[in-house]
Amino acid sequence: MNFSSKYLEDAVDHFASLPGVGKKTALRLVLNLLKRDEEEVKAFAKTLDSLHEHIKQCKVCGNISDQDICGICNQQSRNHQIICVVEDIRDILAIESTEQFFGVYHVLGGVISPMDGIGPNDLNISSLFDRIQEHEVEEIILALNSSMEGDTTNFYLYKKIEPFGVKVTSLLKGVSVGTELHYADELTLGRSITNRLPFELSFKK
Amino acid sequence: MNFSSKYLEDAVDHFASLPGVGKKTALRLVLNLLKRDEEEVKAFAKTLDSLHEHIKQCKVCGNISDQDICGICNQQSRNHQIICVVEDIRDILAIESTEQFFGVYHVLGGVISPMDGIGPNDLNISSLFDRIQEHEVEEIILALNSSMEGDTTNFYLYKKIEPFGVKVTSLLKGVSVGTELHYADELTLGRSITNRLPFELSFKK
Repeated sequence: MNFSSKYLEDAVDHFASLPGVGKKTALRLVLNLLKRDEEEVKAFAKTLDSLHEHIKQCKVCGNISDQDICGICNQQSRNHQIICVVEDIRDILAIESTEQFFGVYHVLGGVISPMDGIGPNDLNISSLFDRIQEHEVEEIILALNSSMEGDTTNFYLYKKIEPFGVKVTSLLKGVSVGTELHYADELTLGRSITNRLPFELSFKK
Repeated sequence: MNFSSKYLEDAVDHFASLPGVGKKTALRLVLNLLKRDEEEVKAFAKTLDSLHEHIKQCKVCGNISDQDICGICNQQSRNHQIICVVEDIRDILAIESTEQFFGVYHVLGGVISPMDGIGPNDLNISSLFDRIQEHEVEEIILALNSSMEGDTTNFYLYKKIEPFGVKVTSLLKGVSVGTELHYADELTLGRSITNRLPFELSFKK
């Protein structure tokens, strides 16, 4: 695209650098901003400008936070002996919204992926072992996404945590609530039937 | 979603205010920015901050420009007697990329849409009539998108321009190059067969 303004081109390039945003979408976003009040766009710019300054990583779990220690790690009412290991903070939001988990989290910031050159040392893993050693952790829940890389990371963590004598669990994989069986994929349905539960337990939420 | 940081929430809200961007996508974009260098994000912020200051509307045609008069209106080699009326600057980019049009443009900034409360006075229309009166305009090409609103606006403009005695044309509607006929919609195919051309003309690019 041959833009009539180099400032417009610059703004479009910045938006197009975001994941999943192409040049045409970026242009639509910039034109939308141009139609708005200048003050509103300046407020947007200010938020971006101070993004790194204001948003910190929790020193304990790696969650995103305004303080050094995040709201979840700071909450005394939560069970600090159960740590749920997740890939990124979106998984924390998803699990928190279920209101079924009262332990704490540990955010890896990614998964082991040799194809992308990401090894265990590039992730927030060593601090997990420090937490296990320093505190009386009872259970580690591995809640990484089911993918080749997720499974590899799960297995790596499992092997590393085993010597500490801590219970390691993983999320139950099965057909979604409300799914019609013939639409479920074979792998999920297979796991679901292999790991079937006593009927009484299916009443539990 | 219950964010662990109000600054994060603020940034997500700003991104989610963009058209076609929901909360989950906005979060993905912000997390992507957080992973980048601070300098890179600050440059993005700076571009946004000076968006309204740097990007102007061409005083003649309404195109986006760094100067008061845009590059197209400033070009003496173009035919200033032929004005192509478009809805927004993306249409200029699309037409320019064909390299088949050497006249100038007029950007309405929208179409007449009573449902959205947009009347002729909300658009960049009166300056089009000024241009027709002040300069020796030979032809007005109505190149608005084919929609109820686009067609209404075309008809409004046609009725208003008629008294000036200027030739008014519109884009040829027909099946796309490379389309398989049975996939074309009825309206387009119908217009295409009604307005059929002598075979010799189909060689022209």
